[in-house]
Amino acid sequence: MTPHLSFITLGVDDLERAVAFYRDGLGLATPGIVGREFEFGAVAFFKLNGGLRLALWPRASLAAETGLALQPRSATEFALAHNVESPAAVEALLAQAVAAGARLVKAAAPTFYGGHAGWFADPDGHLWEIAWNPHLAGLG
Amino acid sequence: MTPHLSFITLGVDDLERAVAFYRDGLGLATPGIVGREFEFGAVAFFKLNGGLRLALWPRASLAAETGLALQPRSATEFALAHNVESPAAVEALLAQAVAAGARLVKAAAPTFYGGHAGWFADPDGHLWEIAWNPHLAGLG
Repeated sequence: MTPHLSFITLGVDDLERAVAFYRDGLGLATPGIVGREFEFGAVAFFKLNGGLRLALWPRASLAAETGLALQPRSATEFALAHNVESPAAVEALLAQAVAAGARLVKAAAPTFYGGHAGWFADPDGHLWEIAWNPHLAGLG
Repeated sequence: MTPHLSFITLGVDDLERAVAFYRDGLGLATPGIVGREFEFGAVAFFKLNGGLRLALWPRASLAAETGLALQPRSATEFALAHNVESPAAVEALLAQAVAAGARLVKAAAPTFYGGHAGWFADPDGHLWEIAWNPHLAGLG
């Protein structure tokens, strides 16, 4: 497999609410919900770095597409991280997310690696770490 | 928030097994497990497109870091997608993943949008869609 990710799809319970959070709350651009004409097709895409797209798709659609049973939420399955340029920017983005409906999971604090980070959960319980890491460029 | 993702972290139950799957089974490059000297620090990074890194980190570490309770697995929380250049490449990569220890969730088949895709679950139950999408460049 080449080291290239095309999509990270977040399972959501309420697609409109999730789009509002990411588009209006966090300020990510999207053409909005597309694919409503197909059963389980309604989805919203956000273009990210390097050709990656973030997709918001109902958990029920993900279950239907894969044939898996719809399962309860689980916050410890995965996490996304967004790095910013300063400790102050960590605080600001966490505050922005909470104002938009996120739950503050861990207030921003110094990290063991000399950075500064905090965590929020989006309206579907998905974890985001907002971090400033002065050593990011040197990571293997 | 700028449209930039720094890390996608997968919660794993067995870090050595997960690294073996992604490194040896799928062929993604990694310096291997680092950070063992820190409590909850052991992690493996894989460089992907656009500055994104895939991280494998124990679910227990994710719980400890965030203060959340460790929760049961849930396959419908999210999915990753990797796009390839042909229907045959979809079949080949699914077979490679299964040979490496993945579970085939949905065999490759034509998709409603005129592509070809199949799904596997990694050793921790995380979903991957392997897809050929002739319309990918035109997605909003």
